[in-house]
Amino acid sequence: MSTQAIVNQYIHDHIPITIALGSVVELATPQKVMVTAPFLNNINHKQTVFGGSLHAITTLACWGLLYTNFIESLGKIDIVISKSEIDYKLPIKSDFAAICERPDTLIWTKFEQMLARKGKGRICLEATITENGKIAVAYQGEFAVLKQVG
Amino acid sequence: MSTQAIVNQYIHDHIPITIALGSVVELATPQKVMVTAPFLNNINHKQTVFGGSLHAITTLACWGLLYTNFIESLGKIDIVISKSEIDYKLPIKSDFAAICERPDTLIWTKFEQMLARKGKGRICLEATITENGKIAVAYQGEFAVLKQVG
Repeated sequence: MSTQAIVNQYIHDHIPITIALGSVVELATPQKVMVTAPFLNNINHKQTVFGGSLHAITTLACWGLLYTNFIESLGKIDIVISKSEIDYKLPIKSDFAAICERPDTLIWTKFEQMLARKGKGRICLEATITENGKIAVAYQGEFAVLKQVG
Repeated sequence: MSTQAIVNQYIHDHIPITIALGSVVELATPQKVMVTAPFLNNINHKQTVFGGSLHAITTLACWGLLYTNFIESLGKIDIVISKSEIDYKLPIKSDFAAICERPDTLIWTKFEQMLARKGKGRICLEATITENGKIAVAYQGEFAVLKQVG
């Protein structure tokens, strides 16, 4: 199976609400993860996408980026989210895609060094959803990766 | 139907993902809204509740507070969320309840005056989820209520 298929399967198997959300991991590389979801599963009373669904899919994109980067270490590390912010700039009225890209090499290298040295690395990840070429949703999450003890 | 039943029905009818989340509006008064959800619908790979689900249920509690307060004006106003923050302090390992309480009278009165004067009022609402007596999740959302034109 491709990495993208492995991440998609893992999410569906272990976080069952993602099936109802209609989430699909369309791309999963160490540099970039894209998670899509259909409009109809996530529609609200204003015929736009429910804010909770937009948050869930952007969260999955960021979590997926860490999962993909640490796919060789799974079972030895934990991925934890501590907080997040989301800015709903424009309503979404169609199927949508959340994209998380890996931060700059400098930031990423510091994060990996902190993880290697202290057994715990913290990183801020961003995900965006665009519609008609404009950023409609901007998400930021603070994640930690922890080496499991023992 | 009671207000609580009306709000619950409205959410299930118009935001279908809330049925998969298992959300139930258990209480809806102008002062306080409580939305619950079951653990099993929202479980993740760590046997805790998925962060996206916690965000969705806290969002619904705050939205429900505004809906309940403006239930006489529905069809004449819009409720819009512009941004939110969520702090995951402790993992949730059981069925959970998000509670949103109406802010202080001073803040609420200013918000209503702004809405009456300018046709648009902005307010910051908080929702929390507690487990074993401790705040496990703290959510803040910035909402606007707008009078519909025409």
